[in-house]
Amino acid sequence: MRIFLTILLLAGLSFNACSDTLIVQKQRFTLDRFTTASGSTIAPVNIGWEAYGKLNADKSNVILITHYFSGTSHAAGKYHAADTAAGYWDAIVGPGKAIDTNKFYVISSDTLVNANVFDANVITTGPATINPATGKPYGLSFPVVTIGDFVEVQKALLDSLGISTLHAVVGPSMGSFQAIEWAVRYPDKVQRLIPVIGSAYMDAYSAVKLERWSYPIKTDPAWLNGDYYQQGQPIQGLTTALAYITQDALNPVGFNLNYPAPELDTAPQHDIRASFSAWQQLMQQAKLRATYQDANHILYLVRASQLWRAGMGDNWQQAVAKITAPTLFLPATGDLLLPPALSKNSAAAMTAAGNTPQYAEIPGNWGHLDGVIGIEAVASQIAGFLN
Amino acid sequence: MRIFLTILLLAGLSFNACSDTLIVQKQRFTLDRFTTASGSTIAPVNIGWEAYGKLNADKSNVILITHYFSGTSHAAGKYHAADTAAGYWDAIVGPGKAIDTNKFYVISSDTLVNANVFDANVITTGPATINPATGKPYGLSFPVVTIGDFVEVQKALLDSLGISTLHAVVGPSMGSFQAIEWAVRYPDKVQRLIPVIGSAYMDAYSAVKLERWSYPIKTDPAWLNGDYYQQGQPIQGLTTALAYITQDALNPVGFNLNYPAPELDTAPQHDIRASFSAWQQLMQQAKLRATYQDANHILYLVRASQLWRAGMGDNWQQAVAKITAPTLFLPATGDLLLPPALSKNSAAAMTAAGNTPQYAEIPGNWGHLDGVIGIEAVASQIAGFLN
Repeated sequence: MRIFLTILLLAGLSFNACSDTLIVQKQRFTLDRFTTASGSTIAPVNIGWEAYGKLNADKSNVILITHYFSGTSHAAGKYHAADTAAGYWDAIVGPGKAIDTNKFYVISSDTLVNANVFDANVITTGPATINPATGKPYGLSFPVVTIGDFVEVQKALLDSLGISTLHAVVGPSMGSFQAIEWAVRYPDKVQRLIPVIGSAYMDAYSAVKLERWSYPIKTDPAWLNGDYYQQGQPIQGLTTALAYITQDALNPVGFNLNYPAPELDTAPQHDIRASFSAWQQLMQQAKLRATYQDANHILYLVRASQLWRAGMGDNWQQAVAKITAPTLFLPATGDLLLPPALSKNSAAAMTAAGNTPQYAEIPGNWGHLDGVIGIEAVASQIAGFLN
Repeated sequence: MRIFLTILLLAGLSFNACSDTLIVQKQRFTLDRFTTASGSTIAPVNIGWEAYGKLNADKSNVILITHYFSGTSHAAGKYHAADTAAGYWDAIVGPGKAIDTNKFYVISSDTLVNANVFDANVITTGPATINPATGKPYGLSFPVVTIGDFVEVQKALLDSLGISTLHAVVGPSMGSFQAIEWAVRYPDKVQRLIPVIGSAYMDAYSAVKLERWSYPIKTDPAWLNGDYYQQGQPIQGLTTALAYITQDALNPVGFNLNYPAPELDTAPQHDIRASFSAWQQLMQQAKLRATYQDANHILYLVRASQLWRAGMGDNWQQAVAKITAPTLFLPATGDLLLPPALSKNSAAAMTAAGNTPQYAEIPGNWGHLDGVIGIEAVASQIAGFLN
């Protein structure tokens, strides 16, 4: 959300609070014990969630929104009327909008190991959480968790609310992974699926690219193998990781609109150690975000993303064959992080299995981020697909 | 050249030595003193060069080839008949080939601060060179050098050979920067220009992306602000930088053909510190290359690339307006490092100034690297343009 905001502000775009802006509240869901797919137990697990709209009598009007890597459960609305910004997909979630809260009850939850663990509006469980058994943060004793684990925690939340079917699951980026996994695991529960800027699998190229986000943290001497909670965060490594995430989420066109061209700088012409203004600005913005994020949480989210493949086994193509939900893939044309080819390959595997996924591209200058800040461009496709 | 080789071998391609393979010899050019555009003096400067074909009587048949970031002057031919591989553009440089050495005298020189400084076949001057004034390697006391400086050293080499006009200047990637700068500075000498996988300028996005190659070196404690020659190279930083360069030069399609998919690995499922086979292989290959490369040289090449803009002033569009040479831009369709948009923007600026640059794309799976290993796909365009 904050990346989104930063970019919005940088781009000189304005965000008009409609008079009908939803006022939303964070809620807490607690699972006393959760066992991961790998067999580890985490006790307890807490996650935050929000809901927009009204649950109907037979609980048949639920849409689940699953968030992206740097995102939170704050998909729409504001916490207070005076908030400067609304949730990340407020352009399409609300009364009369594409995901119409006059019709649908929309639920959005924080993932395990959410990046923004020190944001007051986020509730998550991860390596920065105090392990009740030791009284100290888990650090690397927290188990590696997967997209499948994220989905199982969401499933437990929905079970606790007595919700057994979903009109749709919709999510951008890492949210698309969760949405697809929902449709693979629970084909009888998921009636529609919209993977936005997503993929049904992680390829070698992307897994290595994501490792490059982790590298600055893992090589920061202050990381201490993840056991830094007494000494303080590996701030340089974390800041650098967040800077890289920001750049990789942008298309060069959007990036160059936001950051100064190198010819404006003179120091780098004389000193190899000097850096460019574009680099400095990117790092400064990342440093602000680092204040409410946690380095280990970034590593765990990277790992969950790297391990992603539909069905969490060794054959994602067979897994997506289990999807029965009508599906709408919405990649962003300029996306260099999860480019349209990944959506196309995912859709092709479903087509080969007899499904008939739809496909449309989100236009824009922002690349991957068009799936967040540019989502309004495909509002009518989403509305049409849902209704 | 070795990246090229590694990739070739990994891809299972074979390289057939033709019976007419050129046998070439490295030659040395020495400038007693060279003053950089920034006003620093380097004394002496040595660079290596090679030539293919025969200089005609009026010295009017010269084509200059300028090499890419990781490349050397070894553009074609072999040093010995038994060499397993030929120069990087051997597919288009040789008797009867697109750049026909039966007609043209082709010259290729090592740049200043060449990456492969410890390769026995490379002669270059840079931070790893012994400064005669101190008896120790220059380290960061070596001045920041630019593409303009590279061109001036090449100009001195050609002057020493009595060559005053160039039938063409042709170069891939960083070689395109040098080729364009030749045509900007010496429009009366450059008769044809072929920027391959290139650009007339560096944008903020690319400058930051290149800084990400430098980061692992600059943050390696063994880098010692560039003063590591007694203790030994910052090998982890250098290896990582070379791994990133390899990935960034590849399109995901080509990368995924070369490196194993993440689902084949189990250790990363249980340990955040564990890495994927794809990462390990990339790093192992990079470690081999690191044995003959120098960390500071990489930083200086990154900086020269970051500072690149035609004319080396603050308006590259005005600079390219000085080019009178017929020009053929040859970007690679799948290039994510210097994508076709940069060639298109460069060509558009020339068109706006009244030039009529031609444009064609190199097809292939390898991305940026298609400008090196896939160059044969545009051999006929190159031959047609030169003749």
